[in-house]
Order: sequence, then structure tokens, then C-alpha cells
Amino acid sequence: MSEFNNLSSKIIDLRKNIVRLSSSSDDYRATALNLIAEGLVRDKEMIYKANSKDMEDARENNTTPALVARLKFDEHKLQGVLDGIKMVGESEDPIGKVLERRELDDDLLLEKVSFPLGVIGMIFEARPDALVQIVSLCLKSGNGIVLKGGKEATESNRALVKSIKKSLENSKIGSDWILLIESHSDVATLLKMEGYIDLLIPRGSNKFVKFVMNNTNIPVMGHSDGLCSIFVDETADVAMGVDVCFDSKTQYPSACNAVETLLVHKNIAKEFLHKLKTKFDEKKVIIHGDETVQSIIDCVPAITEDWDTEYLADEIAIKVVNSEDEAIDHITSHGSHHTDAILSQDESNIKKFYLSVDSADVFANCSTRFADGYRFGLGAEVGISTSKLHARGPVGVKGLMSTKYLMRGNGNTVAPYSDGEKNYTHKELSIEKEAMCK
Amino acid sequence: MSEFNNLSSKIIDLRKNIVRLSSSSDDYRATALNLIAEGLVRDKEMIYKANSKDMEDARENNTTPALVARLKFDEHKLQGVLDGIKMVGESEDPIGKVLERRELDDDLLLEKVSFPLGVIGMIFEARPDALVQIVSLCLKSGNGIVLKGGKEATESNRALVKSIKKSLENSKIGSDWILLIESHSDVATLLKMEGYIDLLIPRGSNKFVKFVMNNTNIPVMGHSDGLCSIFVDETADVAMGVDVCFDSKTQYPSACNAVETLLVHKNIAKEFLHKLKTKFDEKKVIIHGDETVQSIIDCVPAITEDWDTEYLADEIAIKVVNSEDEAIDHITSHGSHHTDAILSQDESNIKKFYLSVDSADVFANCSTRFADGYRFGLGAEVGISTSKLHARGPVGVKGLMSTKYLMRGNGNTVAPYSDGEKNYTHKELSIEKEAMCK
Repeated sequence: MSEFNNLSSKIIDLRKNIVRLSSSSDDYRATALNLIAEGLVRDKEMIYKANSKDMEDARENNTTPALVARLKFDEHKLQGVLDGIKMVGESEDPIGKVLERRELDDDLLLEKVSFPLGVIGMIFEARPDALVQIVSLCLKSGNGIVLKGGKEATESNRALVKSIKKSLENSKIGSDWILLIESHSDVATLLKMEGYIDLLIPRGSNKFVKFVMNNTNIPVMGHSDGLCSIFVDETADVAMGVDVCFDSKTQYPSACNAVETLLVHKNIAKEFLHKLKTKFDEKKVIIHGDETVQSIIDCVPAITEDWDTEYLADEIAIKVVNSEDEAIDHITSHGSHHTDAILSQDESNIKKFYLSVDSADVFANCSTRFADGYRFGLGAEVGISTSKLHARGPVGVKGLMSTKYLMRGNGNTVAPYSDGEKNYTHKELSIEKEAMCK
Repeated sequence: MSEFNNLSSKIIDLRKNIVRLSSSSDDYRATALNLIAEGLVRDKEMIYKANSKDMEDARENNTTPALVARLKFDEHKLQGVLDGIKMVGESEDPIGKVLERRELDDDLLLEKVSFPLGVIGMIFEARPDALVQIVSLCLKSGNGIVLKGGKEATESNRALVKSIKKSLENSKIGSDWILLIESHSDVATLLKMEGYIDLLIPRGSNKFVKFVMNNTNIPVMGHSDGLCSIFVDETADVAMGVDVCFDSKTQYPSACNAVETLLVHKNIAKEFLHKLKTKFDEKKVIIHGDETVQSIIDCVPAITEDWDTEYLADEIAIKVVNSEDEAIDHITSHGSHHTDAILSQDESNIKKFYLSVDSADVFANCSTRFADGYRFGLGAEVGISTSKLHARGPVGVKGLMSTKYLMRGNGNTVAPYSDGEKNYTHKELSIEKEAMCK
């Protein structure tokens, strides 16, 4: 970069400042979290007032009720946020966890230890409570954060960041590791800050996530597509299968983990499709079926594009297949490696599905809708990743961590080992003891 | 990609074929490794003959003795390769290892399990033995491999791949997961195969690795720079410090983990620099010193570029600093986040260095030259990564693995949990038992 605009310089400064946070003790970070919680209570009227302004604007702009509900920040949301801060504060310190410990020689000790990634760039929806959750997670995990919230929450986000920064002034870690950005041009600058931002986490529409992935050299954690499939094996329990397919499709159809394609084994197709159709009719689910499906139930004839369509609505593509292999091939060719499930009572078919389907989440006999950080028990979810590197599937605070190899010697040199005078002992040691950096 | 050349189609086919390897049992893979070893012995005369041709060409082209030594494939190298295959075969199965196991409810079990990344693109130096090592590691870890070796080893690589493929025809996993490519235009095609190649591992010159990183959207594991520094704290043991600095600089100066910059605390500078100079003079190490260094010992005046120079030779930059903070700032601004060390007898200074220096390897009181997969006890090293995501520092077979979340239910749906009828138990379980896919 030959020229820096104002935001670039701020991000470069932020990166320099994070060492105070990233090298801080868990005690300092816990105290800072408490200060933030106390501050939010202290400043709540200021925050509610800012949020009212956002809510008014939203109503004037005919914003959808769902967005307005997410935008609201009231006593109830504040309590949720305070509970969240408490939970994050009490969770295990993710910094300086020993992942491997090995003696290389009597007086040479190696440890692989977890450390913060550095600076996270988080682009998220218009949910003020999400801002507090993200800041808490970054504080706990020792990562600097550049925040860009949905524009509908502009006033609320400003008020929250003002309160948080004020509270942190009195802490040992300061507040210069948080930066709130607002405009589209700020996002454009953010995407160019390779080397200063370690990880971008975009949340929002598929289109937006894809745009971020295609317009930055910074690693991106996220998922742009969620074309999930269910294979109904010939041994599937029909009643159970119908329930699972109904839940996977209709429980929340606009979610990325909702099912979009059903692959039904020919030997079970007739019985299964009739019962499924009856159930789907309750919610008026539109079925796009291949020729065999059309010969069994009343449906819309499927066209080629249907096998690659993420409906995100009460709509589904159904194909009859001759074998598990055909189902797996279909998922490999058309799926998005997000979440796929098999319904089967045959152990070897289930194992084959687990081994052969190359997706972040591979399920048997349960709804695809379980693919979620909270449901998985990961604590707070920072995102869902369809990348195969670093983190895959729902990602918790672990996804914000990197590692360092720490070594402690007593003047050890490599020459005697290379010359054959000394030999490495390479003894694996317990990882229970605290890291040498603590 | 709108048009596919011949190589693109081959890589797309290879990707389809890998499921036979990636879903195979450890027994099948062990048998295949044995077949490869037996085959190399069977075909050794053919391989030696091909290697002789490469050696002749290399001598005619006045190739350096070091390259010729690496290029040679004889009885001794064959034995090394056979030992390596045996070691890889006997190592723990990296596929299907349970990393987390959690009960979500009585009848809903979640496992995070290790799985192969997919297809690795490996571009490596003219070392025929490295080809066999890479193929063995990919076989063991269930990854398909596209190989591009140094051009000086063309005949040897062809002979080795011919032997390996012939041996694998008789195995349960086949040989269609290995592809040898040869030309520069093949590499250009490889770099464009996003979505079909999961990870590129380029080995070679800094310039080449940087070229790869800048010319592909495929994730790259590697390191382009190795600007390693040592900070000599005021409490350092002078004799130990001189030994460690001498080893770090001169034991193998062209390695990426050789030290390039020394930062010496002002309170120890006089004594330390005099003794270091005496030792460095044994190897005629050229010292580029700042003004204070110039006032203490005879040296070349350092210019601004010296602080950013990776000499990869018997040459070093030395600066006197006023504090540990100044040293850390210098490393943050000029280092390459590869390997940095502190020499100190002060525990709190060592801990501060561990916490504040953001590098893959952070050492105390030992040579930077220890930063290496073999020395670290990782078994075979696939590369050294300066990325902070996925894998950092020397990388063993773990770096070739991804994960899947496997879930097993009994018809479970999300609705009753969302409606508050049921609650998750989220009970952490032991990871000792085999994965549900086994």
C-alpha cells in the first residue's frame, strides 16, 4: 500500500497496541469484562436512547419485523448480554493452553501453546447484543477487533462502543484494541489490510459473504453456501425419516443448515414419498421431483438447476437414487460441503456415509438443523466455516486462536546433534502443567 | 473455469477418485505402503538407471555439488527411503481420530473427528527420496497428491512414480490418487485449480514460494521469509550467548532458521560484542553494526536495509538496544514471524518475550536452528508454516488433516429444543473410544 487513509493508519496503530491485551493475564481480562458489564448498567439509559433512535428510523424505513426484533436493545436484551459476559469471563482461559509438550533433550523443553490470532475483522448483522458478545469473546481470547455492524444499528453500536471504551479506560488492558467502523468505504479499506487483519468473519447474506471472499487476500472464516442434502437409505425407518426431513426443511427454512435436496433410495421411495408428501402438505412445501418422484406423488417437475438451488424457503428438490453410491456422488457433485445426513438402520451404510461424504457436518438419523455452535455445545459461536483448513463447521472461541512453539534451553546448540555427538530424546510429556510463558 | 486443458481434467478426475483412498482402513493403507517398499526393491535397477541419467545431465550442466548430492539415488538413499516407509506405516492412523466427543442429549452423540484434507499440491526440490516420502505421507493420511519435483530429477521421478503406481495396482486403494506433473505450464494450471486442490505446499527459494502465494487462490502452506532475530538481554550468560549466536548464525547459514539480526542490550554490549567478534572471526562472519556497535568492535556500518535483510550467509546485522521493549518492537517491525530467541537469565524477561513476540517459534537460551520438524520430534516434516491459521511453525502429518463433525441420532429433530420441550445435556465424554465412523 503506497498511501494510507485515516482508517488504514488506525488499523495499523490498533495492531501495534494489541500486545497489551494479548499478553495480559486472565485476571486482567476478567476484571475488564466485569468493568464492561458494570459500565453497560451505568450507561443503559444512554444506550436505550440511542437504540430508540435506530428503532424509529427502522420503522420509518419499513424494516421487516424480524429485523426490528433483532435491532431492539432493552432491559431483557441487556440482561442476556450481562449473562453472556459472565459466562465468557468464567470460561477457561484460551490463551497459553499447552497443546503439546515434548522433551527434546534433558535440558531442552518444547511446548506448543495456544495464542491469540491477532486482529479479527468482524462484519455482522444489525444486532446490538451481538456487538457486546463479539467484544467479550475477543477480549477473553486476546484478539484485537475491528467491528462493522449492520447500518440499521448505527446509533446503538456507537453508544455501546462508547460505554465499553469508557469502562476499559480504567482497566489494565485499555481500550485501544477496539475499532468501530461504519461506512461501505471503510469495509473496502478493511478488506485491503492484509498483514494487519489476521482473520475476517463476515456474517450476512450468501451474496455478501461471497463478495468478501472474492475481494480480499485476508483469510476469511465463513460459509457462502448451505446446500444440505439428506439421503434416505432403503433401510430407513419411514416414520422417523419423515419427521427428520420435515424438521430439516421447515423448522427454519431460511437457515443455511436447512435441507434443500432429498435423495431417496428406489426401494423405499413409494412408501416414503407418500407419507412425506402428506406431512409436507401441512406447511405447503413445494416439491421439485425427478421423473420417478413425479410418477409417485404430485409435484413440480425438477429441472437441472434444482439440484444446485438453495431455496431457503418451504421448497425442496427430491430425486430417487439406485444406491448409496449414487447418493454420495450426487452430494459430492452438487452439495456445498456444509451439512449432509443419512437416514438408515444399516450400520455399514452409515459408516460408509461418514467416511465418504466430505462435508463439515455428516449426520445420521437426525435433523440437519442441529449444525450450530450453540447446539453443538461450543459455547458462543463465532461463525460456521466450510473451509477445510484451520476450523471447519460451527466455530467457537478456539477458532480465534493460533499457536506458538515455545522452547526453553540452557545454551543448547544444534551442532552437536548434527555431528552425531548428541541424540534427541523426543520424550512426550504430560500437558497438565502450566505453559512456560505463565 | 470455462475451458479445461488435459491436466485440469486429470486433476478433476483425481479428486473424484480419492474417496477410495480417504475412506480406506489403516490396514489397507499399511498393505499398500508395504507393496510400495517391495516394489522399489524390485525396480531398483530401473530407478538407479534413470537417476544416472539425471546425474549425468546435472554434471554436464555444472550443477552445484550440493544439488548433485541431493539428486543422487543409490543403495544408501533407497535404504533411507525404505526405513521411512516403515516408520510412516507403523505410525498412528491419523484418519478418524476423535478430537472431541460430546453428548448433546441421551440419544444424540457428537464427535469431532480428523479426516484427510483432500488433494495436496506439492512442489519440491530435486530430491528423488523426498518424492517417496511425500507419497508415503499422503497415502498414510489419505490425501491425493499432485507432485511437481525439481526438473533436475525428471527421469528419477518418472521411474519412481512408475514403480509406485505399478505396486499400487495390486492394492485395495489403487494408484489413481497420484499425479506427477513436470512443466512450468503444468504448475501454472495447478495454481488455478481452486476447489480441486485443498492445499499447496511449495518448497524452494523465497522468491518461488512468494510467487506461488501471490498467484493462487488455493491455501498455501509455507514460508517465504526467515528473518530470525536473537535478543541478548542484559542478564544473559555471555559465554552461553556467544555459543548460541555462533551456532544460530554459522551452523548452516543458508537455512531459513539461521539468525540474521542480533539485538544486544546496552548494559552487556561491550563485553558480549568483544567475545562474539572473536568467535565470529573464526568463520569470517561479516558484521553490519549500528553506531554503538561500531564504537565497540570493528565492523561494517549498518544501513537501513540491513535490518530487513535475510543474508542467508556468514553475515549478520547487530544493533544495541536500550531495553527489552525496544528489542521486541524491532522484532515486531522487521522480523518475519518465523523464529526469534531471547538469551537471558531473568525469568520475567523470558516470559515477557514468550508472550509479546508474535512468531511461530519463540525460544529462550537455545539456537534458532532448532526450529525444524525433525528436531521438534514431529516425525516427517511436510513444511514450515508462517501462517497463523491451520498450522504454524514446523508442520508434520497433522497439517495434512482436516476435521468433520459426525453426529448420530435416533430420529432427533430440532423443534422440541427450540420450543423448550427438551434441553441439551452437553456432556463432555472421553475421547478414548474409537470414532463412530470406524
